[in-house]
Amino acid sequence: MAIHHAAPAEVFDVGPLGAALENSKTKVLVKTDTLEMIRIVLPAGKQLPPHRVEGEITVQCLEGCMAFNAGGSEHELAAGQMLYLAGGETHALRGITDSSLLVTILLR
Amino acid sequence: MAIHHAAPAEVFDVGPLGAALENSKTKVLVKTDTLEMIRIVLPAGKQLPPHRVEGEITVQCLEGCMAFNAGGSEHELAAGQMLYLAGGETHALRGITDSSLLVTILLR
Repeated sequence: MAIHHAAPAEVFDVGPLGAALENSKTKVLVKTDTLEMIRIVLPAGKQLPPHRVEGEITVQCLEGCMAFNAGGSEHELAAGQMLYLAGGETHALRGITDSSLLVTILLR
Repeated sequence: MAIHHAAPAEVFDVGPLGAALENSKTKVLVKTDTLEMIRIVLPAGKQLPPHRVEGEITVQCLEGCMAFNAGGSEHELAAGQMLYLAGGETHALRGITDSSLLVTILLR
């Protein structure tokens, strides 16, 4: 089955999944030559090990709570909080509660 | 007074302003060479006239409800909904209710 990515001007949801979070999977929402947007489902206790991408990224907590590690520091992100990182910076994530986040990557 | 923009890995809020929305102003949250993020406060009935920017943009409704015009079509965005536009595309906005939105611009 072809994966559907949003087209320009197509409205898509990034609201809290609520009860549906438990059975939801990480999904690429947008993919163009210069921009990628991913909704990551991050259950409590799950770790995304250290990794990095070439371009800048923004990370927005959509629901729940997570620990974000970058530059030797840990930052807690709750729903409605976000941060950005310069390109090439190593970072890691861990779900504190069941959570989901929106990651926007600037491709170069 | 110098305007504070978030630094890399600095946590900032994009949650609903709620009762504070009425007295809040549009604010640039992030500004780098390649990325700009703006929280726009858009009262009911207020229009942002047609304009365009060079790079791709994403538009996320944080609270309330707004009408987004692009490509000859009007799209309604409620809290938790978003869209993106290719660079250079003319667009306009109108608050349906008091609302705020997060605009991310990929600068080139």
